[in-house]
Amino acid sequence: MWSKNEKSVARQAFDKAYERENKELVNNIKEMANTAKTSEDIWQLHDFLTEKRSEIDNKYNYRYSVLMFVFGRLVREGWVALDDLEGLSEDKIEKIKHIINM
Amino acid sequence: MWSKNEKSVARQAFDKAYERENKELVNNIKEMANTAKTSEDIWQLHDFLTEKRSEIDNKYNYRYSVLMFVFGRLVREGWVALDDLEGLSEDKIEKIKHIINM
Repeated sequence: MWSKNEKSVARQAFDKAYERENKELVNNIKEMANTAKTSEDIWQLHDFLTEKRSEIDNKYNYRYSVLMFVFGRLVREGWVALDDLEGLSEDKIEKIKHIINM
Repeated sequence: MWSKNEKSVARQAFDKAYERENKELVNNIKEMANTAKTSEDIWQLHDFLTEKRSEIDNKYNYRYSVLMFVFGRLVREGWVALDDLEGLSEDKIEKIKHIINM
């Protein structure tokens, strides 16, 4: 069960991670495009985006039943800091930490 | 039937068109990436590339059985100039012109 406050903490951390990851994606694409010389480089950029799009679509799943797994992954990948999750119950934090180290 | 000289003219025109279109693609992507602000812009770039890739893959078909149709399309789209096709027989040029106006 998620308290009202926990839901608010989770939502904020989730949205912040999404924003961070998208911002980095935009920057990565700008750099890839800037240094592209041939159409081969462009198809490589296309492959990268295809993969990234499906990764992001799959990863950012805001259902409470999977949210701790989502946060575990986001912390592991550096999109969420444990500090962002302050306000979640001890046992949720423990669970997330367990997932991080899985 | 394609003479040796016609084959050489065709190959050059074909390769030149491919190079031109790819060069413009690289430039377009650079510009789209440069002006991109949000991930939405990036997904739009991705959609554009997905479509473009399949279009280019389909279009640049160097089989003699379809080559006049390919040239008709390339001239219509501006990737090949009729001058590039100088050296092809009268009837091939006529056929290509007919396709251009189809």
